[in-house]
Amino acid sequence: MASRARVLIDCIDKKGLVYKISKIFYEFDLNIVSNQEFVDKESRHFFMRSVVTGDFDAQELKNKILNAIGDDAKVKVAEPRKKNIILLATKESHALGDILIRHLDGELDANIAGVIANRDNLKTLVERFNIPFICISADGLSRQEHEELVLKELEKYSFDYMVLAKYMRILTPNFVAKYKGKIINIHHSFLPAFIGANPYKQAYERGVKIIGATAHFVTDDLDEGPIIAQDVIAVNHRYDWKDMQRAGRDVEKVVLSRALKLVLEDRVFVNNNKTVVF
Amino acid sequence: MASRARVLIDCIDKKGLVYKISKIFYEFDLNIVSNQEFVDKESRHFFMRSVVTGDFDAQELKNKILNAIGDDAKVKVAEPRKKNIILLATKESHALGDILIRHLDGELDANIAGVIANRDNLKTLVERFNIPFICISADGLSRQEHEELVLKELEKYSFDYMVLAKYMRILTPNFVAKYKGKIINIHHSFLPAFIGANPYKQAYERGVKIIGATAHFVTDDLDEGPIIAQDVIAVNHRYDWKDMQRAGRDVEKVVLSRALKLVLEDRVFVNNNKTVVF
Amino acid sequence: MASRARVLIDCIDKKGLVYKISKIFYEFDLNIVSNQEFVDKESRHFFMRSVVTGDFDAQELKNKILNAIGDDAKVKVAEPRKKNIILLATKESHALGDILIRHLDGELDANIAGVIANRDNLKTLVERFNIPFICISADGLSRQEHEELVLKELEKYSFDYMVLAKYMRILTPNFVAKYKGKIINIHHSFLPAFIGANPYKQAYERGVKIIGATAHFVTDDLDEGPIIAQDVIAVNHRYDWKDMQRAGRDVEKVVLSRALKLVLEDRVFVNNNKTVVF
Amino acid sequence: MASRARVLIDCIDKKGLVYKISKIFYEFDLNIVSNQEFVDKESRHFFMRSVVTGDFDAQELKNKILNAIGDDAKVKVAEPRKKNIILLATKESHALGDILIRHLDGELDANIAGVIANRDNLKTLVERFNIPFICISADGLSRQEHEELVLKELEKYSFDYMVLAKYMRILTPNFVAKYKGKIINIHHSFLPAFIGANPYKQAYERGVKIIGATAHFVTDDLDEGPIIAQDVIAVNHRYDWKDMQRAGRDVEKVVLSRALKLVLEDRVFVNNNKTVVF
Repeated sequence: MASRARVLIDCIDKKGLVYKISKIFYEFDLNIVSNQEFVDKESRHFFMRSVVTGDFDAQELKNKILNAIGDDAKVKVAEPRKKNIILLATKESHALGDILIRHLDGELDANIAGVIANRDNLKTLVERFNIPFICISADGLSRQEHEELVLKELEKYSFDYMVLAKYMRILTPNFVAKYKGKIINIHHSFLPAFIGANPYKQAYERGVKIIGATAHFVTDDLDEGPIIAQDVIAVNHRYDWKDMQRAGRDVEKVVLSRALKLVLEDRVFVNNNKTVVF
Repeated sequence: MASRARVLIDCIDKKGLVYKISKIFYEFDLNIVSNQEFVDKESRHFFMRSVVTGDFDAQELKNKILNAIGDDAKVKVAEPRKKNIILLATKESHALGDILIRHLDGELDANIAGVIANRDNLKTLVERFNIPFICISADGLSRQEHEELVLKELEKYSFDYMVLAKYMRILTPNFVAKYKGKIINIHHSFLPAFIGANPYKQAYERGVKIIGATAHFVTDDLDEGPIIAQDVIAVNHRYDWKDMQRAGRDVEKVVLSRALKLVLEDRVFVNNNKTVVF
Repeated sequence: MASRARVLIDCIDKKGLVYKISKIFYEFDLNIVSNQEFVDKESRHFFMRSVVTGDFDAQELKNKILNAIGDDAKVKVAEPRKKNIILLATKESHALGDILIRHLDGELDANIAGVIANRDNLKTLVERFNIPFICISADGLSRQEHEELVLKELEKYSFDYMVLAKYMRILTPNFVAKYKGKIINIHHSFLPAFIGANPYKQAYERGVKIIGATAHFVTDDLDEGPIIAQDVIAVNHRYDWKDMQRAGRDVEKVVLSRALKLVLEDRVFVNNNKTVVF
Repeated sequence: MASRARVLIDCIDKKGLVYKISKIFYEFDLNIVSNQEFVDKESRHFFMRSVVTGDFDAQELKNKILNAIGDDAKVKVAEPRKKNIILLATKESHALGDILIRHLDGELDANIAGVIANRDNLKTLVERFNIPFICISADGLSRQEHEELVLKELEKYSFDYMVLAKYMRILTPNFVAKYKGKIINIHHSFLPAFIGANPYKQAYERGVKIIGATAHFVTDDLDEGPIIAQDVIAVNHRYDWKDMQRAGRDVEKVVLSRALKLVLEDRVFVNNNKTVVF
């Protein structure tokens, strides 16, 4: 029997959804700790996230909801558990380190299964936190060959989300397809500005007065996946692109960690190429 | 018969509220255009704002809800109508002007009944917008005497909200009591920092790196009423207090107009000395 | 004889510039009220803005500086005077109205020569401020034909800057060339994101969590001119593109007015396709 | 012979300062990499920070400047060197961890001499970074007694700055006097709002819509020292005070690290109870 769960619903909008769902909560004698709904008029989709407490069978609750609102709905009744995440990195430590510190702190509701990197210079940092560090060098390998080694390593782990903490390699469609909806990336610009390589250099050359960072789910289209969180910081003419990069790191790490927390708390729904964030 | 309404509910929290209310919406065959709820665990209060469309009798809908959730609930079924507002000002034009332009633009769902000021230098501006301007000078009058003249003038108007658009006079408890929950003020600081007179001078002397503005409902305690909206802007050592004041004006006007729009759209609930803003 | 001036210097960087310039200030017995310098290492350019007071002949001061640092330097010794601006608009009132209110307030150190629009619906607003309003409709005209009428009208005025306060027409290279470095535009996005038409719709479709506005000088390349100021505002999944547009207006007007003030105070230098803002 | 230095000047303002100083730079055949000045009209003080390169004797340069502008000026010619810092903490890891990661990264131009804490739960974290951790428990001790132990420990180290990374104990005037101008604190609110204990609880109770953090030098007056940096984050009615605390941590750590970097780069001058930050 469950005592607390997050109920997550994503379905075609129609009349009476809130009524039918809240009726079931009522019949199960649940307390609604928090409740948020959203209807996207364009996609005609209904999204709902309720945190409920009581004394209930999670599977039964899910079935009743599916019966009431239709089998084509996506319904999750998620009991509290730590999610498993795996981190991919290259050589920069700010985003990775921020996650490690938060994890140590108990701030993230997650277990870190390991860190896979294509360079070895983060090894000491990661191992200081007693987390497995696997270096899979790409030297002398084609993109394909390297990715196959990474995929093989990934198969050893069971994880809910893969976090690209400044993993500076482009993933193939095959890789992305395999972990659809599970890969979170931090892009070091305010997307969709400065897609592609070295956005800080692009930003510097364009002479912008604000720079930003974007956390998003990874899809086949590079830098085009659903955006989870964004933030910005002011810069001025005194910043060269290295200064922008340094300043941008603070935004990158905070935005990535914020997005990760939202995802771990089941607050993010994917709505075509956008997100609904409760 | 109504075709669209905002349903606003504020009551003691208990189990089944969402169910009971959404059941009535369902029985009335209403579309829920948007729906937001919040339970304050501390005050044990439930707040809900739903926008519904359909074909219904507003009074009957209200009665059914009251029957279902208890007579002690505060329930409003507000059909679309322009609210009436009255503006009080002194001599600064930025906040007042911003409201006048937005009003002309049709951006505010409100009629402006008039502007009452204790100086006459805004007369030309206001009259350019074909809005009545009444100057009630405080020269030679006690606070009490001046306020009585203002109250007398106010009685000529029917209004939903009174907006203090940089009205630089302190209101007596008597005045506030008479218009409880209806007076919106813009305070030119990031409350609760710099309560009282000349907050920019205080901010300058304290050497802050950020200044702000706060829109709030007015209560008996000066600058202590429920906060509706706040925003800030960065400053630095090159700003003297006059520069801070100039920079602050942009924040003041935007924050006041934002708060006013929230109130006009029935998005703000007062929850003891705080607000719930949907 | 002048008693106060802004000294603006833009030249190739070389050793001793500050020394040579400050020596002249010293010999003229000037007070330096404020002084800012910047060297762009990439373009190897030196920029300086000093506000000086004293009792001096402006032309003589300029000549001495040119003698000291080389004839190829751009040197201005600008005595205080109100600049003349002309505004171009289409039908939206928020950016235009913001400038009109600030002008009335004495906040802008400028005379507004007039407002030229391709629609007539801003006529009443503008005339309320006793400012000439000229409507040059584009109905039935080619871009070329319409622009010729506008250019002909512009020739009647003498102005320092032309402000496009949501002028929704694309200017031809010929037009831009004629007023090189004098045209300030507000683009309703966080450039370089969402170049081109309807950026709010683009932003909505991309699912961004932050929207922005960019004030820039106009060059031949649409939306590619040197950026003067930018700012942003947070949005979420509840915003459709009309909501983003409404929210964005507050950023647009504040950013445009901020850029205009910077330009009027001679704080903006163009450095290739960027700006130096003191 | 030095090849690069930061020249820091703080003196009573008078005519010709920039001329006299830049003349010396010229005579020493120095390149001015960057140069910033500020005159505080109220305190009548002149502040200057120049980064110069060349081939020079630092002491001689300093003496020449003192001769030129007067012996009462404060002049530093600081050659590049890593500063030494010591960290004081209690039990929260976010601010401390952020500094440790940046230090490991080489982002901070500093050596960390050690971490002194009044609890032992940060021991593992700190030692993972090979940095000495000293726990001086306050259990059973008076404030006076505990502080004496801390002071005794501090005497073992030579350091330029002491950073209170969420050190939750109030320092006595004696302690502060001993390290005047050397202690940097992060206060978990937007000072001067919410001075004193548990500012997040205070912020929650006041119902603010924005929370912040303030890095400042410590003086005798609790939470009243010169502010170096501040930043804020938006909150809403859904945040209880624990949520505000969690959200606030991201601002705290970023603001403290930003202030620390500014200080390490000699960018911060104290100007009575304010700062000038170049």
